[in-house]
Amino acid sequence: MTLNRDKNILIIGLGLLGGSYAMALSRKDYRVRAISKTQQSIDYALQKGMIESGTTEVTKEFVEWADIVIFGLYPHIFKDWIADYQQFFKPGTIITDVTGIKGDFVRTIQGMLREDVEYIPAHPMCGKEVSGVENADDKIFTGANYLVTPTEKNTQEAIEICRDLGWILGCYRVAELDIDKHDEIIGFVSQLTHCIAITLMTCNEKEHLEKYTGDSFRDLTRIARINDVMWSELFIDNKAALLEQMKEFREQFEKLETMIETEDVDAMRAMMRRSTQRRKLFDK
Amino acid sequence: MTLNRDKNILIIGLGLLGGSYAMALSRKDYRVRAISKTQQSIDYALQKGMIESGTTEVTKEFVEWADIVIFGLYPHIFKDWIADYQQFFKPGTIITDVTGIKGDFVRTIQGMLREDVEYIPAHPMCGKEVSGVENADDKIFTGANYLVTPTEKNTQEAIEICRDLGWILGCYRVAELDIDKHDEIIGFVSQLTHCIAITLMTCNEKEHLEKYTGDSFRDLTRIARINDVMWSELFIDNKAALLEQMKEFREQFEKLETMIETEDVDAMRAMMRRSTQRRKLFDK
Repeated sequence: MTLNRDKNILIIGLGLLGGSYAMALSRKDYRVRAISKTQQSIDYALQKGMIESGTTEVTKEFVEWADIVIFGLYPHIFKDWIADYQQFFKPGTIITDVTGIKGDFVRTIQGMLREDVEYIPAHPMCGKEVSGVENADDKIFTGANYLVTPTEKNTQEAIEICRDLGWILGCYRVAELDIDKHDEIIGFVSQLTHCIAITLMTCNEKEHLEKYTGDSFRDLTRIARINDVMWSELFIDNKAALLEQMKEFREQFEKLETMIETEDVDAMRAMMRRSTQRRKLFDK
Repeated sequence: MTLNRDKNILIIGLGLLGGSYAMALSRKDYRVRAISKTQQSIDYALQKGMIESGTTEVTKEFVEWADIVIFGLYPHIFKDWIADYQQFFKPGTIITDVTGIKGDFVRTIQGMLREDVEYIPAHPMCGKEVSGVENADDKIFTGANYLVTPTEKNTQEAIEICRDLGWILGCYRVAELDIDKHDEIIGFVSQLTHCIAITLMTCNEKEHLEKYTGDSFRDLTRIARINDVMWSELFIDNKAALLEQMKEFREQFEKLETMIETEDVDAMRAMMRRSTQRRKLFDK
């Protein structure tokens, strides 16, 4: 392991993900502290043994203690934090994050950052429909993919530490992706799916659907319970890639409408066979 | 219970659903026999104790034994069966089915049927991505909704028997629906969701997605593993209602595209809050 237990780990932002990181790392005997907005979150994390100490104030003393800093903040708050407090980092600090979009965002942060501090972007592909440290749960990492998106600014050592972090969290697979390819993939597998779910849940006024639905509808709308502040920000931040994915989806959907309209059973069956074949790869 | 254990129950078609009915009913000590296409299915069901006897041949003796007949066939095969063999029914036989579309289909069957035999249409809202009696499993009914869609041709007694069947299978809720309303609802909650899943799974050529996906994508595409013969038939049979639902979905999806394009965060957040609120009703 490159990520040894002698590394001090500071988590900034004890939300659902920050809290789940703290829980996973503390359970594996890493030294974890946290800075978070409310004393309530800090108290909760202390009480549950997720951190050894925490504060609501950003101080030099607290920040320079850390070898590794994990940001669990919304993208624009993360950016502001770097602008306001990066002078507190100890030289050589490695920072990483849980941010679901990369691309321009990563370029901005890396462009702002001191030369002696390294930002290695990453995030796990997991979450919950609820937020807050009270809902933190390190079981969310079980079976999850962990994505590391290094740029030409990253060192091999930081990449290794970041990959190790994914394994230590308990993720099932650690993959590396180019930051632009990342945003395209995330636009497709994560953001498009959320767009579909909220569309499906709001596209008509039918009432009492819960009396009639099967698991299909429940599965497709699970993520329609959504944090509107966070996701609207993520959608805008990845606008170009997301709109391209939405367009591809809509065009294929329109093809299917035409197949049904014209009763083109052969085309429909070919599409279904292809979807069946592609989906088989995903069974865990 | 109106559906007493002195009623003889015959299942026609031992597929996934027919087999699961047989399993649930036999486990609760109902007398169950079956007619199915292959001897292999019959042998499997006998060996697993799902039926007390079975045959691949449709004989008067076997059919007239039954008080209740449950059809687990594809819609067009069900229709052909009634045309070919309905003379074998004992007067007073009640027949029901597992067919996921109703509307015109129900009118056709009820129109063809002898006056002394009653067809009460119903089906459970559950299934699996795999087919065949070997995959039968009466746990699919746990938590499921069971829909009964009576018409003016149905008697109160048959409706009661059919509702009881839903409870005996182990469904969580039994609901009654008008047949046209049924097709609209099914077009929405079941068929549209399958259309979305197969579209999502086939709308681009990205490879190795399984390395990058989270649970959202897996949830939305679980039903993209689909029986192409059955579902293309169901789509065509419910064409008008399904196309209407697809159109409503597509129009709402296009609105969301515009919100993202124009960075209308307020509209996006309002849509997300509405979807969150609506989805809450579905948590089991």
